Amino acid sequence: MARAVELAARGHGTTSPNPVVGCVVLDGSGEVVGEGFHAYAGGPHAEVVALAQAEERARGGTAYVTLEPCDHTGRTGPCSRALLAAGVVRVVVAVADPSPKAAGGAARLRAHGVAVTSGVLADAAERVNEEWLTYARLGRSHVTWKFAATLDGRSAAEDGTSQWITSPEARADVHRLRAGADAIVAGIGTILADDPRLTARPTTRAAHSDAARPTAPAARPEVAGAKEGPRVRTPLRVVIDSEGRTPPDARVLDGAAPTLIAVADDVDTDLKADLLRLPRHQDGLDPHALLRELAAREVVSVFLEGGPTLAGSFMRRGLVDRVVAYLAPALLGSGRAALGAAGVRTIGEIHRLTFDDFSQIGPDLRLIARPHHTTREK
Amino acid sequence: MARAVELAARGHGTTSPNPVVGCVVLDGSGEVVGEGFHAYAGGPHAEVVALAQAEERARGGTAYVTLEPCDHTGRTGPCSRALLAAGVVRVVVAVADPSPKAAGGAARLRAHGVAVTSGVLADAAERVNEEWLTYARLGRSHVTWKFAATLDGRSAAEDGTSQWITSPEARADVHRLRAGADAIVAGIGTILADDPRLTARPTTRAAHSDAARPTAPAARPEVAGAKEGPRVRTPLRVVIDSEGRTPPDARVLDGAAPTLIAVADDVDTDLKADLLRLPRHQDGLDPHALLRELAAREVVSVFLEGGPTLAGSFMRRGLVDRVVAYLAPALLGSGRAALGAAGVRTIGEIHRLTFDDFSQIGPDLRLIARPHHTTREK
Repeated sequence: MARAVELAARGHGTTSPNPVVGCVVLDGSGEVVGEGFHAYAGGPHAEVVALAQAEERARGGTAYVTLEPCDHTGRTGPCSRALLAAGVVRVVVAVADPSPKAAGGAARLRAHGVAVTSGVLADAAERVNEEWLTYARLGRSHVTWKFAATLDGRSAAEDGTSQWITSPEARADVHRLRAGADAIVAGIGTILADDPRLTARPTTRAAHSDAARPTAPAARPEVAGAKEGPRVRTPLRVVIDSEGRTPPDARVLDGAAPTLIAVADDVDTDLKADLLRLPRHQDGLDPHALLRELAAREVVSVFLEGGPTLAGSFMRRGLVDRVVAYLAPALLGSGRAALGAAGVRTIGEIHRLTFDDFSQIGPDLRLIARPHHTTREK
Repeated sequence: MARAVELAARGHGTTSPNPVVGCVVLDGSGEVVGEGFHAYAGGPHAEVVALAQAEERARGGTAYVTLEPCDHTGRTGPCSRALLAAGVVRVVVAVADPSPKAAGGAARLRAHGVAVTSGVLADAAERVNEEWLTYARLGRSHVTWKFAATLDGRSAAEDGTSQWITSPEARADVHRLRAGADAIVAGIGTILADDPRLTARPTTRAAHSDAARPTAPAARPEVAGAKEGPRVRTPLRVVIDSEGRTPPDARVLDGAAPTLIAVADDVDTDLKADLLRLPRHQDGLDPHALLRELAAREVVSVFLEGGPTLAGSFMRRGLVDRVVAYLAPALLGSGRAALGAAGVRTIGEIHRLTFDDFSQIGPDLRLIARPHHTTREK
């Protein structure tokens, strides 16, 4: 199963809105005869790739799959039937499929006499599929909040200047992470202050999107399931702009990538852009509603950038699933804080996280942490 | 010389107010015949230890020393004469001795026909002796500023509560670092808010004080110069308290260690404590004057704790030589910032540093960084 999790990780950044899945098929004697992973939406599922490699040797054998085999006919046929047709007698699953439309694979297999074991290496398989499982279980996009700051947590000097606190290497790394997300979200404050493009620089999405994943394999040798698929989509740009103040000539509206402007449902605007109307909330637009609407548009993962207020608003509601912090070896002592009010009045209410990874990127440090509250929320 | 630097590092935390020094003696054929380091003030110097081990084999040989051999008779005799008496014909020095009273060793050796080379592995030797060289060159104590904060740079919640942001492991590490310093400095704000003891928990000073030094050797095998010396002194506690507001029952006055209360020279106080009267400065007491006064008391290294205002005041004046940051995997979004106003208005004035080391301490992260400005100041 550990190998299947490794295989699954190779799909990172290109399978959306599908999960990443890895599969290893053993013959009756326990020898590996097939390996596969799901490489892109619309492409063959991991099980199908591994079974094709195994051919007749799968008969009487065992399949290890990181996610319960699907039981529905979407862009490809149901994997449960493919496993039955191949004559596999045992299926070991790490994580059950939480999506109502695809679940039921294990039940169908059992009904046909296949021995099904579930929960094997579930933690690792949960981790590798974190974005999609959040999306499938909670019905909202998974959120990675990124910030760049000094060692004392400031992201701009007193006079508002902030270019540049972190290094070119760190900024290039941000572009790689952006490329791995389905949407990049910023607040209107960031748009008005920095006029960012919110695009990912041209880069092979698959080649770099694992940078922030400690569980991903370092190398990507060519294995069955190689990414010969269609070009992956460009991340959607989303501006949270309750009053519709985005300037018509903002770079985010340059047409280089699709853009969605989220405005309040009662705002009268003649902005020539795709508008997403959302209910107002105490401090702007309702982030829950935003993430549900984005999920409905098959946005599995969101990369949240820019603005202490916006970040605080997501953090306070337990809507941050991963934090990526770039800390520069620098001190400011004053100026804009990286995070605004996040609903903490006293130390007992502090948002606790766990560090998943830290690494030096040029002269800077990149920390990846996982808030505990989103775990509780599940 | 690399070996001599390694040896020198073993003296960390116990030689103050003396430098750390390492020495390797080679015989005429280039074989190592003696090694030594300076282990404690009043104990034998590195050269003397290494020469004693080499005995007659030093004659016609070479001595590698991390710091120019002293030429004065202090608690021990001058090393320049010991090297001459041993018949060494060549001395290789990493860093020249900047202290007026001890310098001149190289000149005396040369005058007696010994070949002296200087500047070999100077960077490493500078680093290993950083505290003492700052003290000897600038006539002020070397300052390590320590802070503990969340990932977003906050050291207390909105209501002032702060216990505990970092883990017991991180706090134990702070005690180890405190024990390696000659003085622990805090502001009156910290005393009134937290009533800290400002002591180092009982610990073998030598065994742990290298924790924050990436250049220090991991193991400490017993070599010549082992620390059989007198017990090292307890760090002096210093409170910066311009108006003399330290409560008579403050823990810092508990007698567990010597304490110095720095007050303004015009303040009328009946505080029963050792007082250090200092000139007032725009935002309190003059930190330069404090560090000069402490240096005059043979305080080579200061561990600066507590208070964003105090830290900002030191930072602004280029009086922080090393930063040790404990970052908890936590977010606050509001509350007390770790660093107060530090003289930066715009991004071009940002205090830049270089990361020397980062390591996980329990669930937290410890970062060690070196501000660039103090290098420029030298």
